[in-house]
Amino acid sequence: MVETDAAEHGRLTLVLGGARSGKSLYAESLVTALPKPWVYIATAEGRDDEMKARIAEHQARRAEDWQTIEAPLMLAEALRAVPAGSALLVDCLTLWLSNAMLGAFDLEKTMTHLGEALAARDGATVLVANEVGLGIVPDNALARRFRDAQGLLNQRLAAQASRVVLMVAGLPLTVKGQS
Amino acid sequence: MVETDAAEHGRLTLVLGGARSGKSLYAESLVTALPKPWVYIATAEGRDDEMKARIAEHQARRAEDWQTIEAPLMLAEALRAVPAGSALLVDCLTLWLSNAMLGAFDLEKTMTHLGEALAARDGATVLVANEVGLGIVPDNALARRFRDAQGLLNQRLAAQASRVVLMVAGLPLTVKGQS
Amino acid sequence: MVETDAAEHGRLTLVLGGARSGKSLYAESLVTALPKPWVYIATAEGRDDEMKARIAEHQARRAEDWQTIEAPLMLAEALRAVPAGSALLVDCLTLWLSNAMLGAFDLEKTMTHLGEALAARDGATVLVANEVGLGIVPDNALARRFRDAQGLLNQRLAAQASRVVLMVAGLPLTVKGQS
Repeated sequence: MVETDAAEHGRLTLVLGGARSGKSLYAESLVTALPKPWVYIATAEGRDDEMKARIAEHQARRAEDWQTIEAPLMLAEALRAVPAGSALLVDCLTLWLSNAMLGAFDLEKTMTHLGEALAARDGATVLVANEVGLGIVPDNALARRFRDAQGLLNQRLAAQASRVVLMVAGLPLTVKGQS
Repeated sequence: MVETDAAEHGRLTLVLGGARSGKSLYAESLVTALPKPWVYIATAEGRDDEMKARIAEHQARRAEDWQTIEAPLMLAEALRAVPAGSALLVDCLTLWLSNAMLGAFDLEKTMTHLGEALAARDGATVLVANEVGLGIVPDNALARRFRDAQGLLNQRLAAQASRVVLMVAGLPLTVKGQS
Repeated sequence: MVETDAAEHGRLTLVLGGARSGKSLYAESLVTALPKPWVYIATAEGRDDEMKARIAEHQARRAEDWQTIEAPLMLAEALRAVPAGSALLVDCLTLWLSNAMLGAFDLEKTMTHLGEALAARDGATVLVANEVGLGIVPDNALARRFRDAQGLLNQRLAAQASRVVLMVAGLPLTVKGQS
């Protein structure tokens, strides 16, 4: 599905999907189809039991083959620290965005820095993000602001990416680029 | 993406998508690819600050090139008043449906009148509507009734349209017609 | 859209979609394109007026041409009781999953039994399930657990199915298999 030739280096893929749609597993498969080294930027913090269980599940799957960098907030800086030529997975941008909003970051600036750091990468990059805007309008204003911000972030990343897929029940539906 | 020959006149396109999925911008691009005059039917009313900001953003983008008609409720009547041969954008049917439900309109009759007015149009028409049914079942009965009504309206319009797209992160995914 | 030759027998189709996206009608059309007998496994129980109205609407549409089996919970057992060679519709797996969770079933075992019963079928099978994970994260933990379980169930069924479609406004978007 992913060719391992030189053309892959610098390629940006965005994996979108709903809850439990198979985003992480598919995104990992895109990276492990490329030569090592594999780098994983984790944005999750284990602040409650649900999240701790989800993190443990993902870690067990990745085993020892990955170098893991934790970046709940300083994502652009973490991206710039990834060694050139490595294949990178960022999982996921929704938690990072949530952390940035809770941290009262300037979202416009933060998204711009992220885009610049992605453009500067030397090596294939796979990004995971949630699609959260296809339900009924949320009652509370914070949730509405969050889904607006996530929608805008996804639009920006999709414009920059060479390939965008929407995961449906574990299956990738190609929205941009070749399937 | 849109051919500007005579075959376009009378063509109906439905642009579906979630919150901040790039529906309006894409729909505008379909209309501005056609010859003027361009007519915009706005269904939004600026009843709160969130909505006023959204309206101002859309207006700034359209500038002076469009004729704007406000139709928060009487949409079929507004459609029949649009000059023949103009390219029309209706943004959006979700607010209109919400207004019609709050106004206790007979939805079956209202949807039928809308379909008839669309069929009677001479000129390309682009409709924007939200997809709201892909989240968890809402707690409150009004929200459930609304998403049922929106789903039924989208089905009817999609059946009538020659082209239907689902916007995903600013990218059109063709569901019906040619991409 | 569905060929009626022998190759159809044993074929598994998964019809996913949001609320009022036309799942049931499309799924019925897949079955009625095949030779009789047509069997319908209903998982709905008429516990409130909304649900009773929905059931009545579906029943009226199916008329007398279908054999109906009610299986709000014991779905694997019901599947094994369907006569060989018949074309089967199960509508829907979301209500069944909800019933199983309320009944405190072991979901892992229950899903495995379901997969085995589907694999053992002799005859085309069409499954209907909701996509519920594309909205904002629900506030309450039960809703989060439900959407996680539905997502996992959909992934498993999609992996087993020869064809998967996502319904958008009454139109099938092919995610797996031929359109």
